[in-house]
Amino acid sequence: MAVYTDVPDEELRAFIADYAIGEVVSCKGIAEGVENSNFLLRTEAGSYILTLYEKRVAPADLPFFIALMEHLAAHGIACPTPVKAKDGVALRRLCGRPAALVSFLDGMWPRRILPVHCAGVGDALAKLHLAGAAFALRRDNNLSVAGWRGLFEACRARAHEVRPGLAEELGTEIDALERCWPRDLPSGVIHADLFPDNVFFRHEAVSGLIDFYFACTDFLAYDLAICLNAWCFETDGSFNVTKARLMLANYRAVRPLSADEFAALPLLARGSALRFLLTRLYDWLNHPSGAFVRPKDPLEYLQKLRFHRSVTQPSAYGLDA
Amino acid sequence: MAVYTDVPDEELRAFIADYAIGEVVSCKGIAEGVENSNFLLRTEAGSYILTLYEKRVAPADLPFFIALMEHLAAHGIACPTPVKAKDGVALRRLCGRPAALVSFLDGMWPRRILPVHCAGVGDALAKLHLAGAAFALRRDNNLSVAGWRGLFEACRARAHEVRPGLAEELGTEIDALERCWPRDLPSGVIHADLFPDNVFFRHEAVSGLIDFYFACTDFLAYDLAICLNAWCFETDGSFNVTKARLMLANYRAVRPLSADEFAALPLLARGSALRFLLTRLYDWLNHPSGAFVRPKDPLEYLQKLRFHRSVTQPSAYGLDA
Repeated sequence: MAVYTDVPDEELRAFIADYAIGEVVSCKGIAEGVENSNFLLRTEAGSYILTLYEKRVAPADLPFFIALMEHLAAHGIACPTPVKAKDGVALRRLCGRPAALVSFLDGMWPRRILPVHCAGVGDALAKLHLAGAAFALRRDNNLSVAGWRGLFEACRARAHEVRPGLAEELGTEIDALERCWPRDLPSGVIHADLFPDNVFFRHEAVSGLIDFYFACTDFLAYDLAICLNAWCFETDGSFNVTKARLMLANYRAVRPLSADEFAALPLLARGSALRFLLTRLYDWLNHPSGAFVRPKDPLEYLQKLRFHRSVTQPSAYGLDA
Repeated sequence: MAVYTDVPDEELRAFIADYAIGEVVSCKGIAEGVENSNFLLRTEAGSYILTLYEKRVAPADLPFFIALMEHLAAHGIACPTPVKAKDGVALRRLCGRPAALVSFLDGMWPRRILPVHCAGVGDALAKLHLAGAAFALRRDNNLSVAGWRGLFEACRARAHEVRPGLAEELGTEIDALERCWPRDLPSGVIHADLFPDNVFFRHEAVSGLIDFYFACTDFLAYDLAICLNAWCFETDGSFNVTKARLMLANYRAVRPLSADEFAALPLLARGSALRFLLTRLYDWLNHPSGAFVRPKDPLEYLQKLRFHRSVTQPSAYGLDA
């Protein structure tokens, strides 16, 4: 839950006057999203999400994110569509912060993940990858293999506070993944954070994808590996092969996986588990006391990492070659 | 900001199926209100606020609050109107908590208080008092004079942590107010918490009053004293007589004050300042570390209390007899 910036009504009115969407009717801070301040805004023309970008999002990356949402929406993906002001510019400023208005998407994210949700995510992710193919901009993924060692070094001295021996296990893992990380898989725009709270459903069908603020250019199959981790484990840590099979089958029905991608999946899933383990560990060790956002448990991802390390064949994910 | 309970989508759908308002289209936790969990719910029929009552609201009081909102809405007050389910019952249960659905109100609460807002609040408060006159239920105000000593005793030993000498000053104040608190002023339903975040405006006119969860039966003029404290001081602690005069004049144009009410105003304002000072002090000393809600500064109300103690004539509030 997060609203970091309170927007005075007069400033909001002046901000909205630059758009052709009528006057503000109501504006409520919403308790979702942990990186930015989000408001559900109603004007005479309809409903929107107003986002103020807080310090964790680099302003230099914002044109990429805005252009990506515009591109994807224009290519049939149900995602927030940036609304341009009268001067044609979508990325603006409010209360001293970069700000943008995007379309409101119906639907709710699933709190209890059912197999049907995993099927929908596989399909939606593949369509996202296809729609992103023609997107011209690129943004390096600073949370992939090249970024892990730096994150690890920032946590190393205190990792034992979370679990004895954690630093040693992470060091060995990073050594191994740096050695064998794939180099030539099909790449493109990936969402890179497609967790359940970023996928809206209506009547068990995907109605929208949100929160493109980790999107970047990387291996497409890495995005799939992130989703396997985010959607296919039960809360007790067990891996649900039925869910994984549905996700993968529905993905492949839209965008077939190459033999290399198929073979790399266990490794990509290990890397993805390591990525969320490291960022959660960093947040756990560095969150200010009294912060609004409760840090997520890093050890959930240690369990997932160990599972993937034990996998030798992609068939463990319910996948046939 | 507050969402204490996350509502699983399946439970929400089952809950909404008991109403005749179509299916759920979206549901977002809103970052307002500090006592309960609030969601902005959209269904096929429209927009609503869904409230789950958390432990600070006594379940035994809920029928009073629900009936009051129904009564006020039926008597022309723009306030949240409880929506009844198909069985005619508005107060229900969701996720193990009492829950109710109310109508959504347009408008925004003012972040920067202008004189025109104070005029609107005076008018709206008087209309609220008139509309409440025929309301049959009553609820004692446990945060008026009878409740202060208990709150004080719960804070006494640690009050010096907030300010040296605070316990002594509060003790003297409670002694004085208990001795001279009025006994026979006109009474009725009061809102008892009509702070700026509980009053919505559109185009500088009041568009709605919300959050009736402190409403109770008490002196009507005490409600006005609460508003004087909440709306008429500047952030530097100075008292804005222009705002007070507008609030009082607009109140009296709808509901004239008796001579006794007029004379009692400085005392009621002192008591109201003490009430918020005590509850803020209690919250300050007892809030769990890492809580979502930042406690409000109790000393803001010490300054207001001292101001009112220095007032000998109601004319200090810009009021003519």
